[in-house]
Amino acid sequence: MQVRKVVVVSGVPGVGKTTVVTDAIRMVEDRLNVSLITYGSVMFEIAQKMRLVESRDELRQLPVKKQREVQKLAGERIAAMSKTQVVIVDTHTLIQTADGGYLIGLPKWVAEAIRPASIVLVEADPVDIASRRTKDSTRTRDEQMIENIASHQLLCRSAAIAVGTLTGATVMILKNVEGKAEETATAFAELLLKV
Amino acid sequence: MQVRKVVVVSGVPGVGKTTVVTDAIRMVEDRLNVSLITYGSVMFEIAQKMRLVESRDELRQLPVKKQREVQKLAGERIAAMSKTQVVIVDTHTLIQTADGGYLIGLPKWVAEAIRPASIVLVEADPVDIASRRTKDSTRTRDEQMIENIASHQLLCRSAAIAVGTLTGATVMILKNVEGKAEETATAFAELLLKV
Amino acid sequence: MQVRKVVVVSGVPGVGKTTVVTDAIRMVEDRLNVSLITYGSVMFEIAQKMRLVESRDELRQLPVKKQREVQKLAGERIAAMSKTQVVIVDTHTLIQTADGGYLIGLPKWVAEAIRPASIVLVEADPVDIASRRTKDSTRTRDEQMIENIASHQLLCRSAAIAVGTLTGATVMILKNVEGKAEETATAFAELLLKV
Repeated sequence: MQVRKVVVVSGVPGVGKTTVVTDAIRMVEDRLNVSLITYGSVMFEIAQKMRLVESRDELRQLPVKKQREVQKLAGERIAAMSKTQVVIVDTHTLIQTADGGYLIGLPKWVAEAIRPASIVLVEADPVDIASRRTKDSTRTRDEQMIENIASHQLLCRSAAIAVGTLTGATVMILKNVEGKAEETATAFAELLLKV
Repeated sequence: MQVRKVVVVSGVPGVGKTTVVTDAIRMVEDRLNVSLITYGSVMFEIAQKMRLVESRDELRQLPVKKQREVQKLAGERIAAMSKTQVVIVDTHTLIQTADGGYLIGLPKWVAEAIRPASIVLVEADPVDIASRRTKDSTRTRDEQMIENIASHQLLCRSAAIAVGTLTGATVMILKNVEGKAEETATAFAELLLKV
Repeated sequence: MQVRKVVVVSGVPGVGKTTVVTDAIRMVEDRLNVSLITYGSVMFEIAQKMRLVESRDELRQLPVKKQREVQKLAGERIAAMSKTQVVIVDTHTLIQTADGGYLIGLPKWVAEAIRPASIVLVEADPVDIASRRTKDSTRTRDEQMIENIASHQLLCRSAAIAVGTLTGATVMILKNVEGKAEETATAFAELLLKV
């Protein structure tokens, strides 16, 4: 078992994850060999090469068995990449579907293929997330949406702990406080330097 | 790996699960080949046929090894049934025992034998559940019971996510709002039509 | 699969776990063959015998592969001990690190080696825990610390459920109410007598 240098970073839509990750990479890239990849993109590249799909949307229409095969191959490619560098995997722990259900982003076979050293959950105040999603500067509160976001964030914690239990990955919750994205990025950068 | 057509439906006692499930089946049964089974009953039938037990109460007195064997066989029977129809499995994700502990309703070996497509958690307001349990129309609040119910519902979420992580099942939380059981049943019926 | 007589007991620092466990053992020891062990100590003994470490601090500096091997051997020793007695394993489900992350105390390979019958989470009011940690009798509230403790306790629940799902262990939450440690100990003692 070699040292694992994969860091999974996850967060519900509107949490500000991209800014945090991009800023953190900027902070460390002169000291660290680090790559950022999106799990879905790696899956798409592999499925395309296998001539299973032509567009990204077709991924979800693959038979479950094929989807899992592609998921696993993507995990293995990421594990291979991480032998020589720190690989940040941008993915969702739980994807909310149109009907309100949750898809598991890191099922056992993916988690065990990636074998992350850490799972970082970027979280924010549900009220701030709701504002960003609705681009509503007046912060009119949609209580239903806020409750839904709070609930989604809590469920992501359970999912991260389940993956940690299967793989031994540490779990870190990074609070992305409104107006303090720089602090969040710094904390993430510190984690990257210690992986 | 064939398409999985097992939907696990779960909810703490008093949540109104039976009404939701029965109504949903009524809504879809002219369009869908669907069966409702109770996990415990399937286990009992199998154990009875194996001449391990005569009454249902004896199930829990079986040696752990035998219980697990029966649990697994029940899972496999359900998986077999689901090849030709949608099978709704009525079970508990966490069963509260007399001493306040929780039994795991879907341990790994059961979850992996059933391989559900979805786990549906029917939830309700803990205050409403407490009223139903105590048949108390005046809604005198037993704070201890309410907190206990809220806690139980949250833990069921963790259990559902753990099972989802092991099996890839989607997780859906269905809020059964007092007086709106019809809406909850409709949402469940829609999920059944998409499995 | 033999009967499992391992009870894992866990709780965040300052929860009063040691008192509860010690008192409970005193209550049952004339009726029950029971041992209390600390997972970390068993790991250290094994690693020392294997000449991998000389001091306990070196354990964490071992290569991940070696750490896991020692973790697994410790689990197996505990499982062996539990054939003839009830073994209480004092361990953490989630260890908070200096950078705010969480280490998984019971990853899959440890949980499956120990195969606990029960996981007992000793919990207390986060405000009381914060007071004990800061030895602050005036109960000045450090809101950040209190939120952090509440969050840690909730995450431990998820971790316990994940382990329960993998092993079939029951999960019990024991509230250690300030000034009522005797009651908590009695509840734990009753669980020990039923394992």
